[in-house]
Amino acid sequence: MHRHHPQTLQWNGDVGGYLALIDQTALPLKVTTVDCRNLESVVHAIRVLQVRGAPAIGIAAAYGICVGLQAIDTNQCTTQQFDERLQHCINQLADSRPTAVNLFWALQRMQNVAQTMRQDGHLPNPIIKALLNEAIAIHDEDRKMCHAIGKHGATLLENGQGVLTHCNAGGLATSEYGTALSVLFSAEDQGKTLHVFVDETRPLLQGARLTAWECQQRNIATTLICDNMAAQVMSEGKVQAVITGADRIAANGDVANKIGTYGLAILAKHHQIPFYVAAPSNTFDLSLSTGAGIPIEQRSGDEITQGFGRQTAPDDINTYNPAFDVTPAELVTAIITEQGIISPVSNELISALLS
Amino acid sequence: MHRHHPQTLQWNGDVGGYLALIDQTALPLKVTTVDCRNLESVVHAIRVLQVRGAPAIGIAAAYGICVGLQAIDTNQCTTQQFDERLQHCINQLADSRPTAVNLFWALQRMQNVAQTMRQDGHLPNPIIKALLNEAIAIHDEDRKMCHAIGKHGATLLENGQGVLTHCNAGGLATSEYGTALSVLFSAEDQGKTLHVFVDETRPLLQGARLTAWECQQRNIATTLICDNMAAQVMSEGKVQAVITGADRIAANGDVANKIGTYGLAILAKHHQIPFYVAAPSNTFDLSLSTGAGIPIEQRSGDEITQGFGRQTAPDDINTYNPAFDVTPAELVTAIITEQGIISPVSNELISALLS
Repeated sequence: MHRHHPQTLQWNGDVGGYLALIDQTALPLKVTTVDCRNLESVVHAIRVLQVRGAPAIGIAAAYGICVGLQAIDTNQCTTQQFDERLQHCINQLADSRPTAVNLFWALQRMQNVAQTMRQDGHLPNPIIKALLNEAIAIHDEDRKMCHAIGKHGATLLENGQGVLTHCNAGGLATSEYGTALSVLFSAEDQGKTLHVFVDETRPLLQGARLTAWECQQRNIATTLICDNMAAQVMSEGKVQAVITGADRIAANGDVANKIGTYGLAILAKHHQIPFYVAAPSNTFDLSLSTGAGIPIEQRSGDEITQGFGRQTAPDDINTYNPAFDVTPAELVTAIITEQGIISPVSNELISALLS
Repeated sequence: MHRHHPQTLQWNGDVGGYLALIDQTALPLKVTTVDCRNLESVVHAIRVLQVRGAPAIGIAAAYGICVGLQAIDTNQCTTQQFDERLQHCINQLADSRPTAVNLFWALQRMQNVAQTMRQDGHLPNPIIKALLNEAIAIHDEDRKMCHAIGKHGATLLENGQGVLTHCNAGGLATSEYGTALSVLFSAEDQGKTLHVFVDETRPLLQGARLTAWECQQRNIATTLICDNMAAQVMSEGKVQAVITGADRIAANGDVANKIGTYGLAILAKHHQIPFYVAAPSNTFDLSLSTGAGIPIEQRSGDEITQGFGRQTAPDDINTYNPAFDVTPAELVTAIITEQGIISPVSNELISALLS
């Protein structure tokens, strides 16, 4: 994003500091930040999507531990009180969104740091300092990861191509450059000129509100469409690649991502357009052999019927609102990670890259 | 629709009367009617979608000629003034929406009546009486046509099936029972119990506002989804048939219908679900050998960026907003008309049924 904008996520101060994040529910009309100074505000920010996108949720959760631990007096508390508070923070944050695996991965890293130091006999104060350092490390690694994904992925795109993306897998979903959008931004940095078609992404319009805004900030040629126009745009020959992010990827390469991704992958296959998924390697959940085991968050029907501050459906209408779907590995041409490109998508290549 | 609701379209009075129509832009929150007492109000109603749906547009246009001719004094005007006014009305109405062929078909019928009577030496007054009778006949035939489509189509559905539909091809798109929805309503009338999945149908939400409302009025089990959830619902085995209407069908069976229909047909094929199109035979345009010749209406990008009375995308973002797409005949399992079912969809069977 442009320099004059605040960062997606920013920690201000030392262990007594706080997490400032762009309120993504106010975009694109207002660029405002929310200061999270306690556990509840971070949980709330994740739950109501003030911060969203799998990598950004992970970073926010890590910082959430840091502000969450400020609620106890680490000079006076017992180690048991400290452990209980830490566990409470982890539980609350883990409960905020069920699908993005990066959330659990980040919490696990934080827990590991605390556990190791506790076993080594450290007191709460050095532990909270180490936890803040770990959160900052997660944040920094994400920045580098985004650039590495972009570098690998940009090799798949050619000058003049049209690229369709869904939801927001950009700087707002991560620390900075994004995953799917990092591929586009990196290709543009290399001097390639692309045309990005952005699915508005109902019900919450992350494409219209966030991706369109990010692309516009970078002066990339961008066309916003409704989700149901993707097939038409493909049939007109305007799209040479589809790129999305991922919220969780199973060991066989099945990809959970924003609802609508699976349908897009089918449309891409029908039009013989490659379908790419860009995601950091911590998006893989090797404990799941296939995507069938990925829990799919069901959200309130109000997002469909009252999604724009105005009722657009009859009273009491029944709705179905899965926030994610699972795209089978066979529809994914390649998975672009910070460590390299996996193609064809198979158990073997995935475990080879990750090991 | 329920008896206590006004009709989609209703002519009140004799040749001096007016057209009353349900304002579909106010549904589902308010059931109000608009009285159209001049040409401009009918053209406006069609253009801003107060009345929409290919058959309903045709009926409204026929009545539009009747109110349009009230602007001249048929007791005093010359035949040339009458002819010019009639042609002006036809031109204005033909210009109101470009894709629905029923519009041109209805205007052609009205023009034929006037021309034949003019050639037989009739004066304006008996001609305007005959034109009103022709408009009423178009309206009545549509009612019967809807029921015949429903009767034929209902044979394709079985008790307990899930059926997905897009946009609104119901009573609000026609005189009464609809086309695609007539198939569902007729199956329910026969004692079959269905579950209808309704695509909300961005950008104008005809599914959420109109189809969901019509199904709810008839106490049919209905679930509203966003367009990009259709693939997920299919993959869960909840859908055994997809049925949509059509705005124009070429001689080879290519179908122009609401944007999103083409994508749905691809998704249905991928999941091996039959894809049906229900439309009256006047939807066929045999002058076009394929769908490539069908003009696709492009509508304002505001429908995407300001679709709900609130801006949901950045200022000055570029958009693409085709109102229709074309589904190739090979993706259509059957076309259900008032004269019978066409399957497989081919030039031969189409011309056999229509001749």
